[in-house]
Amino acid sequence: MASQQLEPPSGTRDFLAGALRTRDRVFEQIREVFERYGFEPLQTPAFERLETLTGKYGDEGDKLIFKILRRGEHEATGEADLALRYDMTVPLARVVAGYGSRLPTPYKRYAMGPVWRADRPGKGRLREFAQCDVDVVGSASPLADAEVVCALTDALDAVGVRDYRVLVNSRQALSGLLEVYGVPADLGGGVLITLDKLDKSSPEKVAAELVDARSLAPGIAESLVGDLTAADAVERMQTALKDSEAGRAGLEEIGRLLELASPKVGEDRISFTPSLVRGLDYYTGVIFEVVAEGMPGSIASGGRYDKLIAALGGPDVPASGGSLGVERIIGLLGDNQGDEHRTDVAITVMAEDTAPDVMGFAAQLRDAGLRTEVYLSASRKLAKQLKWAADRGARFALIYGASEKEAGVITVRDMDTGEQEQVPTSELAAHLTGRCAPSK
Amino acid sequence: MASQQLEPPSGTRDFLAGALRTRDRVFEQIREVFERYGFEPLQTPAFERLETLTGKYGDEGDKLIFKILRRGEHEATGEADLALRYDMTVPLARVVAGYGSRLPTPYKRYAMGPVWRADRPGKGRLREFAQCDVDVVGSASPLADAEVVCALTDALDAVGVRDYRVLVNSRQALSGLLEVYGVPADLGGGVLITLDKLDKSSPEKVAAELVDARSLAPGIAESLVGDLTAADAVERMQTALKDSEAGRAGLEEIGRLLELASPKVGEDRISFTPSLVRGLDYYTGVIFEVVAEGMPGSIASGGRYDKLIAALGGPDVPASGGSLGVERIIGLLGDNQGDEHRTDVAITVMAEDTAPDVMGFAAQLRDAGLRTEVYLSASRKLAKQLKWAADRGARFALIYGASEKEAGVITVRDMDTGEQEQVPTSELAAHLTGRCAPSK
Repeated sequence: MASQQLEPPSGTRDFLAGALRTRDRVFEQIREVFERYGFEPLQTPAFERLETLTGKYGDEGDKLIFKILRRGEHEATGEADLALRYDMTVPLARVVAGYGSRLPTPYKRYAMGPVWRADRPGKGRLREFAQCDVDVVGSASPLADAEVVCALTDALDAVGVRDYRVLVNSRQALSGLLEVYGVPADLGGGVLITLDKLDKSSPEKVAAELVDARSLAPGIAESLVGDLTAADAVERMQTALKDSEAGRAGLEEIGRLLELASPKVGEDRISFTPSLVRGLDYYTGVIFEVVAEGMPGSIASGGRYDKLIAALGGPDVPASGGSLGVERIIGLLGDNQGDEHRTDVAITVMAEDTAPDVMGFAAQLRDAGLRTEVYLSASRKLAKQLKWAADRGARFALIYGASEKEAGVITVRDMDTGEQEQVPTSELAAHLTGRCAPSK
Repeated sequence: MASQQLEPPSGTRDFLAGALRTRDRVFEQIREVFERYGFEPLQTPAFERLETLTGKYGDEGDKLIFKILRRGEHEATGEADLALRYDMTVPLARVVAGYGSRLPTPYKRYAMGPVWRADRPGKGRLREFAQCDVDVVGSASPLADAEVVCALTDALDAVGVRDYRVLVNSRQALSGLLEVYGVPADLGGGVLITLDKLDKSSPEKVAAELVDARSLAPGIAESLVGDLTAADAVERMQTALKDSEAGRAGLEEIGRLLELASPKVGEDRISFTPSLVRGLDYYTGVIFEVVAEGMPGSIASGGRYDKLIAALGGPDVPASGGSLGVERIIGLLGDNQGDEHRTDVAITVMAEDTAPDVMGFAAQLRDAGLRTEVYLSASRKLAKQLKWAADRGARFALIYGASEKEAGVITVRDMDTGEQEQVPTSELAAHLTGRCAPSK
């Protein structure tokens, strides 16, 4: 193979043992939390019918779908009939539509696994990456929103993320705000997209964009941005939104979520944040983002999306959900280089005719739960085999040569101290399990 | 969506909670065994460059590769540049070639995950299915072969498969056999493909095919089939193969594998089986299959393939490996419908103003490790909520109405017996953890 072909395809990664164990541990910790909340796992295929996915992600999203060529006699048409899943939500909508009453009501499901997007590679942008979603389909209760927020923050705690804050707003509150500021309804979507930049851009730039790109009057743009970014933004919103029905409903649902979630999340870690917008336009109720000290962007986000399941082809049911930024979180943890998975016992092979005995020792130790490796290379030199044992991170190396065989013992070498002692072969497993903490 | 579109794509499956938990448990049991043997996990992307896969699986295999259409301006060409992985071995060869000395020597890796093949759907043939492989790359030692056989059979034990037998043969022994029987070298491959049918077809039919399709003389065909299927086939082989160098080498490697693996596997569960051929032509040394009572076909298989890694684009290193028929094994276990994942506690919500208290109880119980669900639908009727608790398989339902709130207690209902008792809210978590076995 040419050397470029030895790399995984652009935007994808090979996970060797250290990185993979870290990933698996994180997913396991998250899974345990979601299960404790009564969310059920769902796993759908890697690909869906092309028509299930197209038209669901907007024009820009559609361009990023990996399409699978038809096969056999149809391959020459150059047409696609299948496509790799782009997210976990469209498959959820298909499952909710397809399984109907065979699912519990409400259906609380979690999904963890890869999705694929043909984003231009580079800048660390991935084409294969994991998503980790919880959703409650079929409940309009604010308790569902609170359960989603608590499950996600509980998962962050479990993984070991510290010092995060949950920012809460509501699409109804934002609609009310636009209404109160006299923004014409047809400009509302564009105005929100611009306001979403308040977390990255300066208030001045955002106000300028509202005028230039969104056709707002300069006075309205400045006042809107000024109120949203003021130190007393919350109080300003509470006053302004009283004049709008949508605004009052928004304040009510924000208040309800804070009341239900803050005892668990912590009063000081969750707050109404008027400048939080969230780019996606399918939210209908509360929206939230979790931000953490030292991490750019959000590490979790979500909200209520009561019309989306129907829009994606499912039944017309209310839903609320959220997603962990699991790749970002894992990226910050580094590889698992700890002791957790070091080899307990490395067994040397001193001669061909002791190999069956060695396999017997290995079987005993593995049955006793010890992580045990046998030397598989050709050299019979002890020094080379001990180097191998050290490279494998073994706590103990076993040496079983002709003299040991004759005496019915095995030499146990402590790889940390270099001390050796002879142990009767019949006591080997008991001896080593006593000296090793369990490897799992 | 049209109703056909609600199904997962042909040949793929949605896994809901019960089936998914069974699958995950099986993979976890297998993983624990592989880890105990010192195999390391490897996870490669779902897709590879198209040129990495094409030409590696023969003409028939190539037709079954799912190809991914180029994107953006190149989409209209109808050409593919990527393809879903077809097995775990070609990605292994790429990783071995690409990472070189950054991998341990020998490299003992396991891989578990989906692969995709565009087989004609129907008859239970799947287009997305899991593979579960162990391989040792870089060791020519018979100990490596034995480690592979022991790891796979140990995994079968862990999963709960009983009454299996390991059939062992050797490609060198089969080459020697053809030589002894005077089969021309250029016919050898075809003869082996026909002989591979001996486990499904009658000896007469196989002999006839050797004559009709493989151009063997009738006498040779009958004698070959007769010897392989005789009650004393092993003795006949041992005698016949003495006259061939390849044959003697084959008998030697078979004997060595039996000597090293049978103490662990069990003498009566592993044996030289002259009629075992294995269809794939890349094996160079010992080959094996595991068959089990009541299961058609094999549930695990593998062998030594010293030339394959180089043929697939990797370095020229010896290798040995095997694969568990994990879909077949999981298929026999049925869904996980047991108590293991029933909900511990279902909390009813009797009024809006008790919802914050309910969230607090849920948080306490979850922090104590109990699987806890909160009623998320709109009804405030107790009967309806208790039916929900029963549907969720809850052991206990909690009722917290106005009278309980006033008294500072919560009503705990045992869902099996219907008995109710009142517990001070401050003692709730201790009370219920005492009555519930841990949910995990």
